[in-house]
This record gives sequence, structure tokens and C-alpha cells, in this order.
Amino acid sequence: MAPHRGRGIYIFDAIGTLFDGSVLVDRLDRRFPGEGVALAAAWRATQLRMTWLRSLMDAYEPFDRVTRDALAAVVGAAGREATDVDLDDLAKMYGELPVYPEVAEVIETLVDLGSTLAILSNGTPAMLMSLVERSGLRERFAVVLSVDAIRVYKPHPAVYRLASDHFGVAPRDVRFVSGNAWDCAGAKRFGFDVTAIDRVGTGVLEDLGERPDRIGRDLRVLIDADRHAGASAMNSRPVGDEV
Amino acid sequence: MAPHRGRGIYIFDAIGTLFDGSVLVDRLDRRFPGEGVALAAAWRATQLRMTWLRSLMDAYEPFDRVTRDALAAVVGAAGREATDVDLDDLAKMYGELPVYPEVAEVIETLVDLGSTLAILSNGTPAMLMSLVERSGLRERFAVVLSVDAIRVYKPHPAVYRLASDHFGVAPRDVRFVSGNAWDCAGAKRFGFDVTAIDRVGTGVLEDLGERPDRIGRDLRVLIDADRHAGASAMNSRPVGDEV
Repeated sequence: MAPHRGRGIYIFDAIGTLFDGSVLVDRLDRRFPGEGVALAAAWRATQLRMTWLRSLMDAYEPFDRVTRDALAAVVGAAGREATDVDLDDLAKMYGELPVYPEVAEVIETLVDLGSTLAILSNGTPAMLMSLVERSGLRERFAVVLSVDAIRVYKPHPAVYRLASDHFGVAPRDVRFVSGNAWDCAGAKRFGFDVTAIDRVGTGVLEDLGERPDRIGRDLRVLIDADRHAGASAMNSRPVGDEV
Repeated sequence: MAPHRGRGIYIFDAIGTLFDGSVLVDRLDRRFPGEGVALAAAWRATQLRMTWLRSLMDAYEPFDRVTRDALAAVVGAAGREATDVDLDDLAKMYGELPVYPEVAEVIETLVDLGSTLAILSNGTPAMLMSLVERSGLRERFAVVLSVDAIRVYKPHPAVYRLASDHFGVAPRDVRFVSGNAWDCAGAKRFGFDVTAIDRVGTGVLEDLGERPDRIGRDLRVLIDADRHAGASAMNSRPVGDEV
């Protein structure tokens, strides 16, 4: 593998990769005391489940709608009540998530090294613009790509193709970064070079027949990988000792 | 709606509709004492999640393989160990599930009324043959259709098309029956007449933009619906009072 410094195209997933959804726990806990952790986990799981099912049954609805539907379902299943205003306010939080602590520094460094950065997300264009604007990093991204353009969610291959087509490169020339194991599997299946981010250290592999090229605890693994490019094709924690 | 006695084509989902997966709880509990309920729920959820993700990312593997992978993932996530023999033995149970108590009587009655019955399932052909043979009802089904023929799982529309194509009828002429809410949503989206079976009474609706035509606590709702056909288009518990 030749050194790739300065020539990389990095495609980042948004939620759970650049943007930290864990703030939703506190918000939910204030509204439903003692239930924030459970509701946040169920909300995320239901939201993703709905994106997969809607994609498979060809019944796409935008991510903000699905996010709100999922919250309503989860609150209802927990036997709690929420007004429309509650649901709107909580769902809107998805456009207001902060970046993880190391994100700004890593993004700036990659740009300084000459890389091209982009976002590829399930989020709506409006949600993503809101997130990127708030992060102060908008100018660092060449483009923000939403699945809304093709009305099917990750991990459908058409989503990943959006990114390689946008830059006119082969899939193997795209360095994809995600904190969602199933997203990593879909991206790897499509042919991207994949870095999996495992922030909680519990393992990010999902048995879908694919393995990421490397795993890091946060985005700094990308800088390490860039620095050591050319010395080794496996320049971070090797994949395979992950459980 | 005209009376349809004697002319119905009924397509049944298998697992959770005709065949009772709850026996897996006891088997898991014997192997992992105290954890049977949690493991069984996680196993089923992970198994389905894998079918949806593999379908979306175009990485089909047969249901027996996915079922075993899901069990291994769930046991690992619970911090428990299982040998290959354990996994094989437990996964094989999916071909050995009993029918729910009322199934035989309802199936016999529908056949007596002149209806045509079939199964449409995610299961492999071998798994389904094993289930149907053990039920003693093999002769009652005109055909057992598996998604394995098209290598994509429910709720992809191509799965439901397998059934209407097999019988050469329009989707609206197929009476589809399932205990899985997401399956009901996919079938309704495709255009089938859908009866949702809600055995635990906790509600079988999933907010995917579709509603079944009727809901029953078990398969006897089909006989009631058949008896009253012509009197009312909504001849069982109406849909809409379900939470």
C-alpha cells in the first residue's frame, strides 16, 4: 500500500461517529425521570429498525419523521405519555447533537494534510446542515450527502455509491469512517476502505460477513493511520482480536 | 365485499404464526440457567436484524446460518460461552417448533371450507419441511414457499410476490396471515389482505405506515371472518383500537 498522505477522500458517518447521541439520555431522563438510559437505547434501536424495514418494504420516509415515529413508539411501549410538543422537541434534538471531543482537532488535521472530507448520513439535509453548522466545521467538509436523495437507508449499496460517485472514484479509494458496526459492514461490502470507531470498547463487529480494515477507539486512529501509511497496511489496532 | 367461502387462498407466515418459538425459552434456560427469557428475546431480535441488514446490503445467507450466527452473537454479548455443538443443537430447534394449540383445527376447517393454504417463510426449505412434517399438516398445504428461492428476506416485496405469482392471482386476492407486525406491514404494503395475529395482546402494530385488515388473538379469527364474510368487510376486532 503506497503512502496516501494528502490524497485521501474521507467519508464520515454522522450520528454516533462525529455527533454524540448520548446527550439524548439526559434530555429523556429530565422528561421521563429514571428512564433516560432505557428510552434512549430503545429509541435508537427502533429508529434504525424502522429505517431498515422501510427501506426493505420500499416505504421510505425521511429520517426526521422516522425518528419521531420511533420515539412515539418507544414512549408508548414504555406505557408513558408524551404530547406532540414533547415528541417534536425531543426529536429535534437529533439536529442539535454536539461533536465528540476529539472531532474538531482530527478534522482540522486531516484537512491540513490535504485530505478531502465529506459526510454520508441517514439524516435529512436540514438535520445534517444544522449539525454541521453548530459544529463550526462546515467549511471543512467538501459535501454533505444525505440518503434522502435516493430514498433508501444504509446499508443499501446505493447509499455508499452516492459517495464514490460524487467524487468519481472507485469504492476502494474511499476511506469510510463509522461508529455503527452495521454501517461498517455495509460500507465494506460495497468496497470502501473502512475504519470502525468503537468508542465504548465493547466491540463493533457484527456478524454480517464483513470486517473493517481497522478499528480505533476514536477518530484519532485516522491520524495515526495516515502517519504510518506506507509502513504498514494495518497501521492501527489489528482486526481480529475484537470480540 | 362478496362472500368468499370456499375460494380463499390463505398464505401463512411460519414462525410466530403457525409455529411456537416460545419453547426456545426453556431450552435456553436449561443451557443458561436464569437467562432463557432474555436470551430468547435477544436471539429472535438479532436473527431478524441480521435478515434485514443482510437483505439491504445484498449479502444473503440462509436462515439456518443466520439463526446460528445470531445465537452465537447473543451468547457472546451476554458474556457466556457455548460450544459449536451447543450452538448447532439450539439452532436446530428452529426446525422442531410445535404448532400453536388451535392451528390444526383451524387449518382443517379452512381446508374443509374449500380454501387453498400455503406457507411463505424466511426459513430454509429444509427447516420448513421439518416443521410441516412434524405438525402432521403437510398434506393441508398446497405449497411451502421459502425466501431462499430469491435470496432476500421479508419484508422485501419480492418475497410476497413469490406467493401471488405462485397462484397467479392479484395481491388483493391473497389472504395473508402473520403474527409478526413488520411482516404484516410489508404484506399490506405489497397489497395483500392481511390478518395480524396478536397472541400476547400487547398490540401488533408497528408504525410503518400500514395497517392490517383485521387483528385476532389467534388463528380462529380466520374462521370467524370466513363465517361472516358478506355481512361485513370488517368481521373481527376492528383495527384502530389497538395500541
